[in-house]
Amino acid sequence: RINGDRLWDSLMEMAQVGPGIAGGCNRQTLTDEDAEGRKLFQKWCEDAGMTMGVDKMGTMFMTRPGTDPDALPVYVGSHLDTQPTGGKYDGVLGVLGALEVVRSMNDLGIKTRHPIVVTNWANEEGARFAPAMLASGVFAGVHSLEYGYGRKDLEGKTYGEELERIGWLGDEEVGARKMHAYYELHIEQGPILEAEGKDIGVVTHCQGLWWLEFTLTGKEAHTGSTPMALRVNAGLAMSRILEMVQDVAMSEQPGAVGGVGQVNFSPNSRNVLPGKVVFTVDIRTPSQEKLDRMRAKIEAEAARICEDLGVGCSVEAVGHFDPVTFDEELVGNVRKAAERLGYSHMNIISGAGHDACWAAKVAPATMVMCPCVDGLSHNEAEEISKEWAKAGTDVLFHAVLETAGI
Amino acid sequence: RINGDRLWDSLMEMAQVGPGIAGGCNRQTLTDEDAEGRKLFQKWCEDAGMTMGVDKMGTMFMTRPGTDPDALPVYVGSHLDTQPTGGKYDGVLGVLGALEVVRSMNDLGIKTRHPIVVTNWANEEGARFAPAMLASGVFAGVHSLEYGYGRKDLEGKTYGEELERIGWLGDEEVGARKMHAYYELHIEQGPILEAEGKDIGVVTHCQGLWWLEFTLTGKEAHTGSTPMALRVNAGLAMSRILEMVQDVAMSEQPGAVGGVGQVNFSPNSRNVLPGKVVFTVDIRTPSQEKLDRMRAKIEAEAARICEDLGVGCSVEAVGHFDPVTFDEELVGNVRKAAERLGYSHMNIISGAGHDACWAAKVAPATMVMCPCVDGLSHNEAEEISKEWAKAGTDVLFHAVLETAGI
Ligand SMILES: NC(=O)NCCC(=O)O
Ligand SMILES: NC(=O)NCCC(=O)O
Repeated sequence: RINGDRLWDSLMEMAQVGPGIAGGCNRQTLTDEDAEGRKLFQKWCEDAGMTMGVDKMGTMFMTRPGTDPDALPVYVGSHLDTQPTGGKYDGVLGVLGALEVVRSMNDLGIKTRHPIVVTNWANEEGARFAPAMLASGVFAGVHSLEYGYGRKDLEGKTYGEELERIGWLGDEEVGARKMHAYYELHIEQGPILEAEGKDIGVVTHCQGLWWLEFTLTGKEAHTGSTPMALRVNAGLAMSRILEMVQDVAMSEQPGAVGGVGQVNFSPNSRNVLPGKVVFTVDIRTPSQEKLDRMRAKIEAEAARICEDLGVGCSVEAVGHFDPVTFDEELVGNVRKAAERLGYSHMNIISGAGHDACWAAKVAPATMVMCPCVDGLSHNEAEEISKEWAKAGTDVLFHAVLETAGI
Repeated sequence: RINGDRLWDSLMEMAQVGPGIAGGCNRQTLTDEDAEGRKLFQKWCEDAGMTMGVDKMGTMFMTRPGTDPDALPVYVGSHLDTQPTGGKYDGVLGVLGALEVVRSMNDLGIKTRHPIVVTNWANEEGARFAPAMLASGVFAGVHSLEYGYGRKDLEGKTYGEELERIGWLGDEEVGARKMHAYYELHIEQGPILEAEGKDIGVVTHCQGLWWLEFTLTGKEAHTGSTPMALRVNAGLAMSRILEMVQDVAMSEQPGAVGGVGQVNFSPNSRNVLPGKVVFTVDIRTPSQEKLDRMRAKIEAEAARICEDLGVGCSVEAVGHFDPVTFDEELVGNVRKAAERLGYSHMNIISGAGHDACWAAKVAPATMVMCPCVDGLSHNEAEEISKEWAKAGTDVLFHAVLETAGI
């Protein structure tokens, strides 16, 4: 079993880096806080005897050697970056849980046949730079390096510039590493495990996603002196699209979600009808058929809504992954580990996207989930218990041992 | 008649201060650009023999003496501040038109019985600091000086701090001056005069306004892993309120408008349902009864919409004026001036708010309007012809002479 107190202390110490304003974290990708968190993680890993590699997207690979020189490493990780008002566990548990697995191996004098590589994927959240899971996407060959470097934040700064600025531009070719397998521990970020009273989610699938960024073009005009009939109101079109997305998601129940987290009005002045409204629709479902249908419906309906109002409408897909089925053998290892350790468990489909989804393109991959209070995540109030963190990490430990071989 | 070329040259020169990105201006209140525009205007006024007073809200009063030491001044002005993506004429025409009136009096050797005070009211637009017409509101006793100083921009900087920072905090008590009368020339900012082919709008009324700032409180949560049924979606509530505001305005046609120019999501991240959405509803109508009814309807309906979704809803009125009826004698002077000069004219109700609305509380006041292309304003593409500017300023000149006495 792993050391739950040590894991918890590390979680709490990392949460001090880029603290939020309400008990959580603001350690967004490629900020100074991200750099500080990376340094702390690097120190911990080196103290545990690991050596570092960094690739050209800034992903950190911390290696514990194996006993067989020909065996490919087992990768275990997640991400240390957070949402602007993020929690202390989303991603962080998976990275520090992997570190705890190595620390426990050291404590117990365990040598594995395959090397273990504790991984901190860069820009998982996609909050500052869309899309999410960017560095793992480049690693898996889904995106080019140029695409990754060109991603811009709201201020127009690029990923490439910012990676260099914070000093974490590595020299490894992205995706050159070969994986024997990939495991990721993560909080559920949804309400199911807690509601069902289970310690462990055995993650069999991940739902697919589209991020559709709409740019609506209206006519900037005075809110007071422009008659209703002469308005070209991009804000009103945005409203109708948000309601329509809700309707589309509701019409595909159960097993589908749709919503909007980001809206930007321009010029965003109280007495100016917006000339431009940019917003991103987020739709997800585990069914490929539904995912395709929802996207098609939303694009068609949005075009109709905008045409009615004379508003210009363009759509760019700024994030996408198809539904994922995780590796049967690895999923079995997670289930067996939970059983062996006496933790209650159930199969679950991941509602969020994870680096494991891209890793699954290049290696057998799966995830371990633990509950979080009220299913709340992407919120500073995100919370888990020390017991849940320990149980998840215990299961991760045993599943990794199974694959890495003693 | 005034000198149309000189007026136009001054308009074009002022437009160079705080230029926009698409041919217009970005000279927002209490920015460095505002300070630069004020300096240029001060120099022009002093070159024309006027002396400056500045009050504690930063309003500039440039005096041309009269011949009767007991006669109160006739005030003529508007504002030099602009929207973030504003035009070259909104406000500016009224200030530089008033300067042109004085320059023409100088050319023609005209002395008036009443002094003339060319006025540049501070923070008319209300774009950076709500509400609009802030300094004239303090002048008229509608707001306290403390209220004015406490207004904050989106970054949290206060009006008081910024006024001091740019060096335009004057020493005059706000509202201490007494006015004989107030005239303001302004572009229509709407489509009526151009559509009717009239040179001059004789402004009899101004429609009333409410700015209702809504703060909706939802539950920040993951867009992917939060089931539809568990969402407390403040963005969806915002959408429904925007559609409802549109419906309320349409139900009061003709003679009412309603819309939203500013929306801020928090944390504004693509994969986070917003915990907070703040936006401002702008409603206007010349009818006091409709204005009251629209506000009541909107607040009641918004409360119902939010209750349905479990979203918290609070409303703050961040801008308000009742419908205004301008002074009959002054309105008559404008009409007579247009007739005498051979300009076509019609009565018109101002769709936008103006400093004249607050001045009307403390003195006889009215306005002169000239057309603008396609009724477009609060847009960098705002345009007028040199002839329209000249006609409006000619009429202003004659109406002011009528009131100031030769
Ligand atoms: N786990 C997680 O929150 N990842 C961010 C990408 C997503 O929106 O699913
Ligand atoms: N004239 C003008 O645009 N004033 C700004 C205040 C308003 O929104 O009416």
